[in-house]
Amino acid sequence: MVVIMQPDASASNIKDVIEVIEQAGLQAKVMEGTQQKIVGVIGDKTKLGDANFESMDGVDEVVSISKSYKLASREFHPQSSVIDVAGVQIGGGVPVVMAGPCAVESREQLFEAADIVKEAGAQFLRGGAYKPRTSPYSFQGLEELGLKYLAEARERTGLRVVTEVTTVEAVPRVAEYADMLQVGARNMQNFGLLKAVGRAGKPVLLKRGLAATLNEWLNAAEYIMNEGNPDVVFCERGIRSYETYTRNTLDLSAVAAIKHLSHLPIIVDPSHGTGKWRMVKPMAFAAIAAGADGLMMEMHPNPARALSDGPQSLTPENFREVMDGVHKISAFMKQEHIVPMTI
Amino acid sequence: MVVIMQPDASASNIKDVIEVIEQAGLQAKVMEGTQQKIVGVIGDKTKLGDANFESMDGVDEVVSISKSYKLASREFHPQSSVIDVAGVQIGGGVPVVMAGPCAVESREQLFEAADIVKEAGAQFLRGGAYKPRTSPYSFQGLEELGLKYLAEARERTGLRVVTEVTTVEAVPRVAEYADMLQVGARNMQNFGLLKAVGRAGKPVLLKRGLAATLNEWLNAAEYIMNEGNPDVVFCERGIRSYETYTRNTLDLSAVAAIKHLSHLPIIVDPSHGTGKWRMVKPMAFAAIAAGADGLMMEMHPNPARALSDGPQSLTPENFREVMDGVHKISAFMKQEHIVPMTI
Amino acid sequence: MVVIMQPDASASNIKDVIEVIEQAGLQAKVMEGTQQKIVGVIGDKTKLGDANFESMDGVDEVVSISKSYKLASREFHPQSSVIDVAGVQIGGGVPVVMAGPCAVESREQLFEAADIVKEAGAQFLRGGAYKPRTSPYSFQGLEELGLKYLAEARERTGLRVVTEVTTVEAVPRVAEYADMLQVGARNMQNFGLLKAVGRAGKPVLLKRGLAATLNEWLNAAEYIMNEGNPDVVFCERGIRSYETYTRNTLDLSAVAAIKHLSHLPIIVDPSHGTGKWRMVKPMAFAAIAAGADGLMMEMHPNPARALSDGPQSLTPENFREVMDGVHKISAFMKQEHIVPMTI
Amino acid sequence: MVVIMQPDASASNIKDVIEVIEQAGLQAKVMEGTQQKIVGVIGDKTKLGDANFESMDGVDEVVSISKSYKLASREFHPQSSVIDVAGVQIGGGVPVVMAGPCAVESREQLFEAADIVKEAGAQFLRGGAYKPRTSPYSFQGLEELGLKYLAEARERTGLRVVTEVTTVEAVPRVAEYADMLQVGARNMQNFGLLKAVGRAGKPVLLKRGLAATLNEWLNAAEYIMNEGNPDVVFCERGIRSYETYTRNTLDLSAVAAIKHLSHLPIIVDPSHGTGKWRMVKPMAFAAIAAGADGLMMEMHPNPARALSDGPQSLTPENFREVMDGVHKISAFMKQEHIVPMTI
Repeated sequence: MVVIMQPDASASNIKDVIEVIEQAGLQAKVMEGTQQKIVGVIGDKTKLGDANFESMDGVDEVVSISKSYKLASREFHPQSSVIDVAGVQIGGGVPVVMAGPCAVESREQLFEAADIVKEAGAQFLRGGAYKPRTSPYSFQGLEELGLKYLAEARERTGLRVVTEVTTVEAVPRVAEYADMLQVGARNMQNFGLLKAVGRAGKPVLLKRGLAATLNEWLNAAEYIMNEGNPDVVFCERGIRSYETYTRNTLDLSAVAAIKHLSHLPIIVDPSHGTGKWRMVKPMAFAAIAAGADGLMMEMHPNPARALSDGPQSLTPENFREVMDGVHKISAFMKQEHIVPMTI
Repeated sequence: MVVIMQPDASASNIKDVIEVIEQAGLQAKVMEGTQQKIVGVIGDKTKLGDANFESMDGVDEVVSISKSYKLASREFHPQSSVIDVAGVQIGGGVPVVMAGPCAVESREQLFEAADIVKEAGAQFLRGGAYKPRTSPYSFQGLEELGLKYLAEARERTGLRVVTEVTTVEAVPRVAEYADMLQVGARNMQNFGLLKAVGRAGKPVLLKRGLAATLNEWLNAAEYIMNEGNPDVVFCERGIRSYETYTRNTLDLSAVAAIKHLSHLPIIVDPSHGTGKWRMVKPMAFAAIAAGADGLMMEMHPNPARALSDGPQSLTPENFREVMDGVHKISAFMKQEHIVPMTI
Repeated sequence: MVVIMQPDASASNIKDVIEVIEQAGLQAKVMEGTQQKIVGVIGDKTKLGDANFESMDGVDEVVSISKSYKLASREFHPQSSVIDVAGVQIGGGVPVVMAGPCAVESREQLFEAADIVKEAGAQFLRGGAYKPRTSPYSFQGLEELGLKYLAEARERTGLRVVTEVTTVEAVPRVAEYADMLQVGARNMQNFGLLKAVGRAGKPVLLKRGLAATLNEWLNAAEYIMNEGNPDVVFCERGIRSYETYTRNTLDLSAVAAIKHLSHLPIIVDPSHGTGKWRMVKPMAFAAIAAGADGLMMEMHPNPARALSDGPQSLTPENFREVMDGVHKISAFMKQEHIVPMTI
Repeated sequence: MVVIMQPDASASNIKDVIEVIEQAGLQAKVMEGTQQKIVGVIGDKTKLGDANFESMDGVDEVVSISKSYKLASREFHPQSSVIDVAGVQIGGGVPVVMAGPCAVESREQLFEAADIVKEAGAQFLRGGAYKPRTSPYSFQGLEELGLKYLAEARERTGLRVVTEVTTVEAVPRVAEYADMLQVGARNMQNFGLLKAVGRAGKPVLLKRGLAATLNEWLNAAEYIMNEGNPDVVFCERGIRSYETYTRNTLDLSAVAAIKHLSHLPIIVDPSHGTGKWRMVKPMAFAAIAAGADGLMMEMHPNPARALSDGPQSLTPENFREVMDGVHKISAFMKQEHIVPMTI
């Protein structure tokens, strides 16, 4: 950590800063520039607690130079992690695909979707039983009944099940039925929920918050891992920007950034990321070419009648096209040793 | 609701759209423009569920023209609401001030802060017992002990207590000690928590999400009110923009917008809104001049030693200056009948 | 165009709106909903000038349903355009690559770069002679001397030259030396410059503004085309978001969106889009997989000594790796008929 | 400047960094932390040119600790500047008001507006003769004819004239007619234009770019001042955020930030800042309470018939209300010595 003093800071201002550092059992080093003085902190800065240099007289700015997450960081874990979800490997070189309807609406709809998903070669069935909706008057999901249908669809198809959990109370119930727990964008900093899924004994799919920085996202993973659960997979699903043509702005550079900063796998959700079914295919191809470890996509047997997120759902036919391209591009890149990311 | 067809939509595309509308028991009206056709929906559009016109062939866009929130809307409740919190009126013409440290750190620190807050003329003591922190390794709050200190400080000073609740489990406990429950920015769309505070029997201070639209914020209030709790007060605390000089971008126009769209009161938090103590005074004055019903501010007896948010905390001396200006400006505007907002 | 009235609009308010529409020689159609009335405008809405329905009493909102750009729109030009730049086709199925240093620094540096660019198989040499810099004290480019070096490098290598023009005065000079004129992000709404390059007789590479919507970008192209120049190529180079890890947020969904909305080609600049050389390769692959018509990349013989944008410049070795992957992925997708975009 | 090395940087990496620093005639100081090493640069860092430490091996990040603007900075000019525009003082303690229609449409419209503006007590008439419009098909202004009408209106009323200049070519013409040249948001980084107005011999009103950081804005002022023109006034007019309810997000904290960072005056434009006439009054009051040196507002004799920006224009009646409140609040604060900003 470096404390940058104001140009007109007095000797006594600097003495005060040094005192706080030394009281914490750390060493302070002063560097005198032509315009400004800097005080460096040597040692484990967590000993400083949240000492607020910025509100001390004469201090201009404080620059933190070490990261606040450790378990999720590649710095302390250089090898890429492969996460096993009921026998399916995420991050092992073969892209995983999680697909299905936005919401579980009925047994028939789910089974129809699951059969298509399976047949097209995906490994996971997705579908929301608990839906976080902006308005209290929108369809909120079938809840436990939806979980049961998901479990039945798993038996029927052999697909793994990933589904969102939105409250701490529901964690044990969802963990009982699902193979992987999804924490949604709106809950990325619901720290109680992060801790609960960290103790639930199931791998977690952690979506990026609507306006979360990479640093906040990595720290959210740290909350889960800090409870003893190392099996976290990131999912980029678009961030909020000023652009309104797309529902969100899909930040594919997050794939490369996460690969650099963390050892954990990352997949991409081009359905929420764009909000338009027409853009799902090009963004799915792009994600794979960028080195993503998989995809999450919305597919609905009949999007026009979907109870939520219809405009961004693929038809079965579109979905098969996407899967075909994804498999081919991925296999070709592997075969040709085309590696997207220089770690 | 208006369904805008693509320029090349066929007669059969339009027929399909009309069919979905009529099947829901509503009336469709077609309007033919020179370039595009439009299908209007007459009747209660909630009957349509989430019908996805946008994924039907030939449909270009769907424009919603009625709001998804009702209880929070001024349309259905033209009179401004005054919220009573243990005898203090919010929205009644006199600005309320909620002040105190970011986090409750110790009995001594809180009592010292409470005495200053009281003496300067504020009505509420604020202070976090449960702290939502980006990193799991940051100070997380004194939890129930912090609540007890807050209750003791209330006895000592007569101030009302407002404090954040971050999990559904903690709602009853916080409701037992506090006069007003705060839902923080990171939990604005934690729908389980919104429902829980909606049933807790205490007024709620609802902070705006980091990147929440006004529409999402109003719908979050709707979640609380829909559980039977009409006592919601909004708190603008800055939104996330590209600007990094300030911690957040304080959106004071939200004061005017909320006053227009809703009958509920709104206060402003210039401490989180700017992240710099130096900017709290001008933004507090601005909020009052814009018609805000009150302020929330961080004040710490010794900001340099605060365990969190020191850089944005006022010293007791700054705080008294802010209070003095706020009272004078507010009283002057009242006396001169200077009304900021044309509803 | 649709004028949405407020729920409490009076009959006389509606009459006033109709009057303005009819005075412009257009037809008004009223649609009565249960909560709100709507007035539709039939006919060529440009006749209305900028009539401000939104400031008329009783009007809630105005929804525009036709686009303000025509020449750039796919609606009026369904076939994709191929732009010829001195014999090189952009949009013809083979990705073009424009590469070189951020700024032309010396004859030696440029020749060295040009040789590497040529040898690796790119078609265009890029390099700034006029540099738009945030600070007036930063290196501003070699100006005409830089243009001369670029022309010499073209003779030497056979590469086409694309370079930025930042002022109206410089347009003729730049057009004399370059094969393609670049309008930079900061000038995307410098309408005088857009008109000038529209009359310069050379194809234009139009970068997206720092915070430009797709609609504004398409309208900027319209300014150029409206002066008689149909040869416009878009270049996505990242937009400004709250995320600070990357220099900008590369919006690859813009590739799919522009392909849908316009017939013009679009290329991607992953160097500016990310600001980190390490992320250029994955984003270049992603752009190609998403269907981009080409790439613009910064490559510097010795990035550590570059006078600008060093951190995002590829070394010659990285660059060859990127080119190799791009060519292979592109050729494979063509051969396998993998088409990213459903227009 | 501080160069932060990666945790695994080698001794030779550090040696290379030191070498670059020393070759520039500066001094390097190494500080060894427990996890990372830092190299500080002592001396005038402009000697380093744009040396790209970030692309050197082993370098993690470079933190700049001195500002790239000098003339605009309060650091080098602690006293607040008062700018004189044809006898009217901006920054002298009395808020100036610049008002008028968005665009000059006709002599009659302008004279009518000017009379109302004058009578209500404003000091400046605003009105666009050259209009930067998103679409080439929108009304582009009366150009020189508009300037003539503005000059006539000045003769008639005694008001000063401020109007936008959009191209370098038009600078001499606009400078001939106007008392103050406005650089609009879309041209804030049109560096050619900034230099031209820096040499035009008239004070400049510099609007903030749509997505400009404070640092970029201050550097834009530096471009103007660096040409020998010290008379620059900032105008905050809203920035682009994800919120769509308002046309822009008015960043009133910029008033406090600019007052802290610069000695130049700053005014606020609540008309463009919100895009809604209803929000102009509360935001005007807020700006004054925050310490702004003045306001720019759109007022149109008949907003419903305005050729541009009608929805955000005040009627004459609203305008008088705003002026009345602004004068009273400002005078009261002065009289009571209520000072918004602690510099």
